[in-house]
Amino acid sequence: MKVYGDSKSGNCYKIKLLMSLLEIEHQWIDVDILAKETTTAEFLAMNPNGKIPLLALDDGRFIAESNAIINYLAAGTDLIGEDTFRYAKIQQWQFFEQYSHEPYIAVARFIAKYLGLPADRKAEYQAKQQGGHKALAVMEQQLRQSDYLVDDKLSTADIALYAYTHVAHEGGFDLKQYPAIQAWLSRIEQQPNYTAMG
Amino acid sequence: MKVYGDSKSGNCYKIKLLMSLLEIEHQWIDVDILAKETTTAEFLAMNPNGKIPLLALDDGRFIAESNAIINYLAAGTDLIGEDTFRYAKIQQWQFFEQYSHEPYIAVARFIAKYLGLPADRKAEYQAKQQGGHKALAVMEQQLRQSDYLVDDKLSTADIALYAYTHVAHEGGFDLKQYPAIQAWLSRIEQQPNYTAMG
Repeated sequence: MKVYGDSKSGNCYKIKLLMSLLEIEHQWIDVDILAKETTTAEFLAMNPNGKIPLLALDDGRFIAESNAIINYLAAGTDLIGEDTFRYAKIQQWQFFEQYSHEPYIAVARFIAKYLGLPADRKAEYQAKQQGGHKALAVMEQQLRQSDYLVDDKLSTADIALYAYTHVAHEGGFDLKQYPAIQAWLSRIEQQPNYTAMG
Repeated sequence: MKVYGDSKSGNCYKIKLLMSLLEIEHQWIDVDILAKETTTAEFLAMNPNGKIPLLALDDGRFIAESNAIINYLAAGTDLIGEDTFRYAKIQQWQFFEQYSHEPYIAVARFIAKYLGLPADRKAEYQAKQQGGHKALAVMEQQLRQSDYLVDDKLSTADIALYAYTHVAHEGGFDLKQYPAIQAWLSRIEQQPNYTAMG
C-alpha cells in the first residue's frame, strides 16, 4: 500500500500512527500542499477532491478522507471490534472531529505553524479559539468518565482525535485546563508501537 | 427509538429519509435550534456537543452525528453491505460531505433560509459559493461514472449527500450545470418509501 501524505499534517499522521500500531507495511509518499502538489492533474486523477491523506491499495483503488482510511485499515481488529453500537460511537467521535474540532484546532495550528501567523489571518486565528475550546471541553467531559473516547478501550476514534489534540498548543490551545485529556494523551503515547508525529 | 431533530435541517432529514426507506418506526421530537433548545441542561445531558440530530435508543443510549446515526440504522442492510472497501468509500463520501460540502452548501442555505440573508452575513454567504461549487463538481464527476456515489447501488453515502444537495438552490446554487447530479437526485426520489423533506 502507498500513503500520500504530509508528515506535519494531523490528518495524515492518523494513518501513520494507525499503521505503526497495527504494524502495517507501506510506502509513504510526501506531498507538499503549500507547493500545490494536490492540485496537479496527476493527483486529481487519484483524488478529485485534491486532498491528502490518500491511500492507494495495491490493486489500484484509492480511499480518501483520513477517518475512512483508518477505519478501513483497522477493520477486523480490536480498534473497531464487532459491535455495531460501538462502531457508531467511534464514527460519532470521528464526525465530531471533522466538523467541531479540526476546523478550529487544526486550522488555527495551520495558520500559526504552516503560515507563520500572518497579519491578514490573525482575526481568523483568534476566531478559532472559542470553537476549539468548546470541542476540548466536550472531550474532557467524556474522558472524565472513560479511559478512552468510546468505553475503556482504544479505538480509531482515539487515533482520530489524538492527531490534532496532542499538538493543539501549536494552535494556541493550552491543555493545562484539561487534565482528563492530558491523561488520555499519555495513555495513547504508552501504546506498544506508538510513533510520534513528523 | 426517538429522534430529536428539526424537519428543515438536512442533517436531520437524513435520519427521516433513511428511516422511511427502511420502514423503521420511531418517534420524532422537534427541537428548535433558533430558540436555543439544544443548549438547555436537559439537552446537553443527552448530547454534550449540543447538536441535532440525536438518536435515543430504547435502552437509554444515544448516538449523535447524522452520518453515524444513518450508518448505525442501516447496518446489516444493502445500504451498507458487507464489503469493507465499499463501506470505506461510503464513509469517504460522508466525511467529504461534512467537511467539503455541508460547511458551504448547508451554511449558505442556513444564512438565506433560516436567517433571511441579513446584511451582516451577506459576505459570508457569498464566500460559501466557491467551496460549494467545488464540492458539487466533485460529485458531478463521480456521478458521470456511476449511478450512485459508490458503485451502482444506493448506499448511506447517497442519503448523506442527497439531504443538502437537493435543496442547494435554497443556498444560491443552481444545479442546472450539473446534469449527472440532477439525474441522481431523481433516482433517489424514485426509491420505494422515499419521503420528502419538511
